[in-house]
Amino acid sequence: MKLVHDPIHGHIELDDFAVGLVDTPEFQRLRRITQLGLAFLAYPSARHTRFEHSLGTFYLAKRITEHNPEIEEGAVYAALLHDLGHYPFSHTLEALYPRHEENTKWFIMHGEIGDVIGERYSVREFLKLLKHPLVSGDIDADRMDYLVRDAYYTGVAYGLVDLDRLVRNLLWRDGMLVVGGKGVMAAQNLLLARSMMYPTVYQHHVSKIASAMLITAVELEGIPSDEIRTMDEVDLIARLRASERAEVRELVRAVDDRRLYKRVLYSASDPGVDAVAELRRELEAEFGHLVIVDYPPKPKFEEKNAFVETERGLKRLSEVSPLVRSLVELKDTHWRWGVYARADVRERVERFLRAFFD
Amino acid sequence: MKLVHDPIHGHIELDDFAVGLVDTPEFQRLRRITQLGLAFLAYPSARHTRFEHSLGTFYLAKRITEHNPEIEEGAVYAALLHDLGHYPFSHTLEALYPRHEENTKWFIMHGEIGDVIGERYSVREFLKLLKHPLVSGDIDADRMDYLVRDAYYTGVAYGLVDLDRLVRNLLWRDGMLVVGGKGVMAAQNLLLARSMMYPTVYQHHVSKIASAMLITAVELEGIPSDEIRTMDEVDLIARLRASERAEVRELVRAVDDRRLYKRVLYSASDPGVDAVAELRRELEAEFGHLVIVDYPPKPKFEEKNAFVETERGLKRLSEVSPLVRSLVELKDTHWRWGVYARADVRERVERFLRAFFD
Amino acid sequence: MKLVHDPIHGHIELDDFAVGLVDTPEFQRLRRITQLGLAFLAYPSARHTRFEHSLGTFYLAKRITEHNPEIEEGAVYAALLHDLGHYPFSHTLEALYPRHEENTKWFIMHGEIGDVIGERYSVREFLKLLKHPLVSGDIDADRMDYLVRDAYYTGVAYGLVDLDRLVRNLLWRDGMLVVGGKGVMAAQNLLLARSMMYPTVYQHHVSKIASAMLITAVELEGIPSDEIRTMDEVDLIARLRASERAEVRELVRAVDDRRLYKRVLYSASDPGVDAVAELRRELEAEFGHLVIVDYPPKPKFEEKNAFVETERGLKRLSEVSPLVRSLVELKDTHWRWGVYARADVRERVERFLRAFFD
Amino acid sequence: MKLVHDPIHGHIELDDFAVGLVDTPEFQRLRRITQLGLAFLAYPSARHTRFEHSLGTFYLAKRITEHNPEIEEGAVYAALLHDLGHYPFSHTLEALYPRHEENTKWFIMHGEIGDVIGERYSVREFLKLLKHPLVSGDIDADRMDYLVRDAYYTGVAYGLVDLDRLVRNLLWRDGMLVVGGKGVMAAQNLLLARSMMYPTVYQHHVSKIASAMLITAVELEGIPSDEIRTMDEVDLIARLRASERAEVRELVRAVDDRRLYKRVLYSASDPGVDAVAELRRELEAEFGHLVIVDYPPKPKFEEKNAFVETERGLKRLSEVSPLVRSLVELKDTHWRWGVYARADVRERVERFLRAFFD
Repeated sequence: MKLVHDPIHGHIELDDFAVGLVDTPEFQRLRRITQLGLAFLAYPSARHTRFEHSLGTFYLAKRITEHNPEIEEGAVYAALLHDLGHYPFSHTLEALYPRHEENTKWFIMHGEIGDVIGERYSVREFLKLLKHPLVSGDIDADRMDYLVRDAYYTGVAYGLVDLDRLVRNLLWRDGMLVVGGKGVMAAQNLLLARSMMYPTVYQHHVSKIASAMLITAVELEGIPSDEIRTMDEVDLIARLRASERAEVRELVRAVDDRRLYKRVLYSASDPGVDAVAELRRELEAEFGHLVIVDYPPKPKFEEKNAFVETERGLKRLSEVSPLVRSLVELKDTHWRWGVYARADVRERVERFLRAFFD
Repeated sequence: MKLVHDPIHGHIELDDFAVGLVDTPEFQRLRRITQLGLAFLAYPSARHTRFEHSLGTFYLAKRITEHNPEIEEGAVYAALLHDLGHYPFSHTLEALYPRHEENTKWFIMHGEIGDVIGERYSVREFLKLLKHPLVSGDIDADRMDYLVRDAYYTGVAYGLVDLDRLVRNLLWRDGMLVVGGKGVMAAQNLLLARSMMYPTVYQHHVSKIASAMLITAVELEGIPSDEIRTMDEVDLIARLRASERAEVRELVRAVDDRRLYKRVLYSASDPGVDAVAELRRELEAEFGHLVIVDYPPKPKFEEKNAFVETERGLKRLSEVSPLVRSLVELKDTHWRWGVYARADVRERVERFLRAFFD
Repeated sequence: MKLVHDPIHGHIELDDFAVGLVDTPEFQRLRRITQLGLAFLAYPSARHTRFEHSLGTFYLAKRITEHNPEIEEGAVYAALLHDLGHYPFSHTLEALYPRHEENTKWFIMHGEIGDVIGERYSVREFLKLLKHPLVSGDIDADRMDYLVRDAYYTGVAYGLVDLDRLVRNLLWRDGMLVVGGKGVMAAQNLLLARSMMYPTVYQHHVSKIASAMLITAVELEGIPSDEIRTMDEVDLIARLRASERAEVRELVRAVDDRRLYKRVLYSASDPGVDAVAELRRELEAEFGHLVIVDYPPKPKFEEKNAFVETERGLKRLSEVSPLVRSLVELKDTHWRWGVYARADVRERVERFLRAFFD
Repeated sequence: MKLVHDPIHGHIELDDFAVGLVDTPEFQRLRRITQLGLAFLAYPSARHTRFEHSLGTFYLAKRITEHNPEIEEGAVYAALLHDLGHYPFSHTLEALYPRHEENTKWFIMHGEIGDVIGERYSVREFLKLLKHPLVSGDIDADRMDYLVRDAYYTGVAYGLVDLDRLVRNLLWRDGMLVVGGKGVMAAQNLLLARSMMYPTVYQHHVSKIASAMLITAVELEGIPSDEIRTMDEVDLIARLRASERAEVRELVRAVDDRRLYKRVLYSASDPGVDAVAELRRELEAEFGHLVIVDYPPKPKFEEKNAFVETERGLKRLSEVSPLVRSLVELKDTHWRWGVYARADVRERVERFLRAFFD
């Protein structure tokens, strides 16, 4: 047994099997994958990594399991490994490559960590547990950890959640984690916290612009999936800095120096996929890598599906809490798409956009 | 004016001149210099950087200056830049290269940041301010920030200091920062905090072993000072991973994977410089890079020199506080030197040491 | 100048005039008026008083004023005194007596504190400042302090507010405090915090039942307004314990021992004022003080009226934030009225209610 | 089972037997006994009570017992009740009456709470558990709770202790709680915290003067032990306010209004018991209740006796930690005795003292 100090949960206990998993190169790589990608350009202190978050998720999963002994034991270790496959800068590059969940499976099938798992479980069976409700449910250990952790590291007040109350009131019913009656307020609070972290931190425009620049650099560099999958942030940045293409070197340098592209357009009104595609083509033809169109998918808000145990049976959280209903309705409020340009071409791009939308 | 979110101080205000300094590549590089070097191998959450610490030091320096208007204005910006020259992993590599203070001067004389300074100050005069008591005194803004910040990021309870009380009671007297009567308890607390952070965090054996391994790798790689001085952690790690020497690649790989050398000897009794030098020679001849001798300098404890303003004039803090006197006497208590070896040669090294010291 | 330690704001500075106000018997009496009344029966640690809250409100008012120099200076001292007239157990007894604001005026006109005010201000003019937007606006220093303070003392996670961000973004415009653009998220967060503290803490059923019992005791004892107005909690409880009426002694004893009446009815559906009045009459005739009808007013939600400064002029917060709009719509969600009975008559009362509503 | 919200420990679980104990009038009375007596006159927010502290001690005792199953179960409930007998304002009146431990026994033998205990234990056996090492050892659940709690409520930074680390490393060996090797730093930190809380909070001069005034009032009023023993703070203050003796009324009024006596003498040099006794007689003859001599006992520092489990067997903590040794040597540093006088006789008393010590 080993104890790890953690500012969020105090001390996290790792049993011998967990220590075995953590001590593999695949898991140690998570120390070099920033939890919030480039958000540190907006919140300098947001330097925490997928490593700590994975340990924290394991801790919460274990606590939930303690009072729900029907949950199969392996699910707790799956919680520990649920983010194993993240690319450098976490979600940033998922726009270009398969989702990180695919990569997690790949690591387990091809890495040392698979051997450790194999000592106790069938790897094949274990892979299924990666989608266990403990980490892929609507209200789960994963979300509980990252909200509180991201708030702690950014210093933002909005991520506070009554973890203890929520943990105690997550109940295992028919293969689902449902919220017990005394946990509804805490569950609602988790969703509120998330809805406030979303525009403040997760979709901060500084982070979005820097991410768009990094994505463009990686795309130009043309790194194949089977190369990027095992990279950490040192590998990726070093590769881009040493690129043969001047645009790539320029982009990564600009991200390093926080000399970011400027917002020429930043709008909540959605012109539609086709218009955006056309705009992107035309802008690229005219300006190359000096202009980037950022058209992110609309946020999902799946937590509304969380179930609550009431006197009259299971109900959806959004049925029970009018505030959650509002959150669902409001989920698109903070969505923005944007056009970002290097400072020196800003005005030309402005004129171009005016002409385009005329 | 710009506001930066900070979990320690709330919001840090940067005036336009400070923004100009922060926006240079030299200052942005600090985002990629970890505050506690390899301590994150013992405390996974200790991922904060010199960037945040520099902003925090600036914040405290400014607050101290607000009620001590005699302090020259430039000193506050010197506080912002006092750590500009740190090498990758902060103090770790100072064993091999000139102290980081030298490097800070070099950046100011040769980087863009010098031009920004030059807009308002004589660079020559500014360089002198880098030794200003605000950051190089016995109790200063630098130490106040790092203790509290390091405690926050490691999650260790021992670094708590009553910053507000201390800031209010630091007084400018004859070119020195002295502690006012109502701040003695807070100043004493700062020293206690430091004395407890020292063995718990700063000298944690995991961190010491990993550092010794990294130093060995860099030494074997033979990176000249004028190359290392501008590197960030990406540059350094990428360079070592791509080394032509297998030992270098092996060492950095081991640090990455946290497959650390084992302690064969770890002792508080000092055999003397000469014996250690001889041991090092012999071990190197026999084992090469597989064994490392770690013989750190004894800790200094300069804060005892801090002055306190009492009714009977200025006194040294150690005169006023018997507890501080004890701390001075105890300062060597936690000093250790060690011999670390790769797991597979551990027993051979044990035999070797027994023979050597016989 | 004097410094007061405060867990919420660090150190609160009191200038000499503020010290003069605080040092009067009228202000010191606030040390014996619990901030949350009988909420400590549900949250044992909620023992903070109007004294600390008044100092905290003063602190925030002063900070707001620092960057809004147009606010008249006296308003800050009015903020210090805004709660001077609270009765024992704060809002609990306002059901029986004039609102505490009336009592504040009375203290200022008849107490030593009026003399202190008179040294610097016209008392007549000062009285008007008690309604200053700093403490009676929609988003103000009063609410900001109590939410954060109540959360700290109860240990409830929901009261966290980004005070610093909000303070910096409260702007004085045409005799109003309005929220600047960068404070909208923080203001919205304040309202969310309040909406979650409301059912969790402020309307906790334990607190409501105990309050109803205390109100009944005071009513039976028949304490006239001009006696209660100067009482503190020692005076009131001692008086009730020494009552000549056995029912009064029994009720206060039950509150002391936390042997509370039970909920026979607790409902969100409002039968209307008349039905409740009739029920109350009949229950009293049948059961006397053994049954209490608790029919509280519906919650107000005035913060929706707060103004926000946008590019297109002042807008109401509820126009700008859909989430605030939802809060307004939901404000009655947690309202409940109840019938509480001593444990031994509970069943009889249940039958009575069934007959009544049939 | 019941959950109580607590800002220090999160949620405290009370099993049915503990609920039975807590629900007695004797235990509920602790809600009206302030933890730090009159310290709130120096630290306004220090309004917490023996009630919360008792629950917190129970919580820690239970956690320690969880990994030391040899500890007898009843000790945990004894921990809950260890402070049951405190007089109004906690330790303040122990100068006049038997120690509160005696009173705890009396309550258990004569109160309802004895009946609850009797349902499961022999009361006679239970009484012995009140001295169990869990609450009367050198490092125990009692001290761990009060240090952290007092720091939280005063807002003083010095009481922070790594509770989790300490709890995990308290081991039951031969009828003692000893500190395991990995807990030494945390244990040392606890002692440091206590040594800093001592002068800052526990012996704050404001608290000492007010306490001396209250003691004098109670002494003049001549309340017999068998009356005071069941009083709460309401009873005591109401009794003093209604006293037939004007001096008593004046003293309690002065404490209420924080119009405290002034320090005419406040000294670290001890004139000896006899000189103080003579001085007290003479001052009383001359000034009556207008002057108070405060000659407190020297602080004990029993924690040095705590045992640590080392590789070479059990050692005293003071043997293992030089810093603890210093603390023992320094324990008298902050001791002061004083002569306090009503403001208007201050100068006369000064002259009197000069003559007396001449």
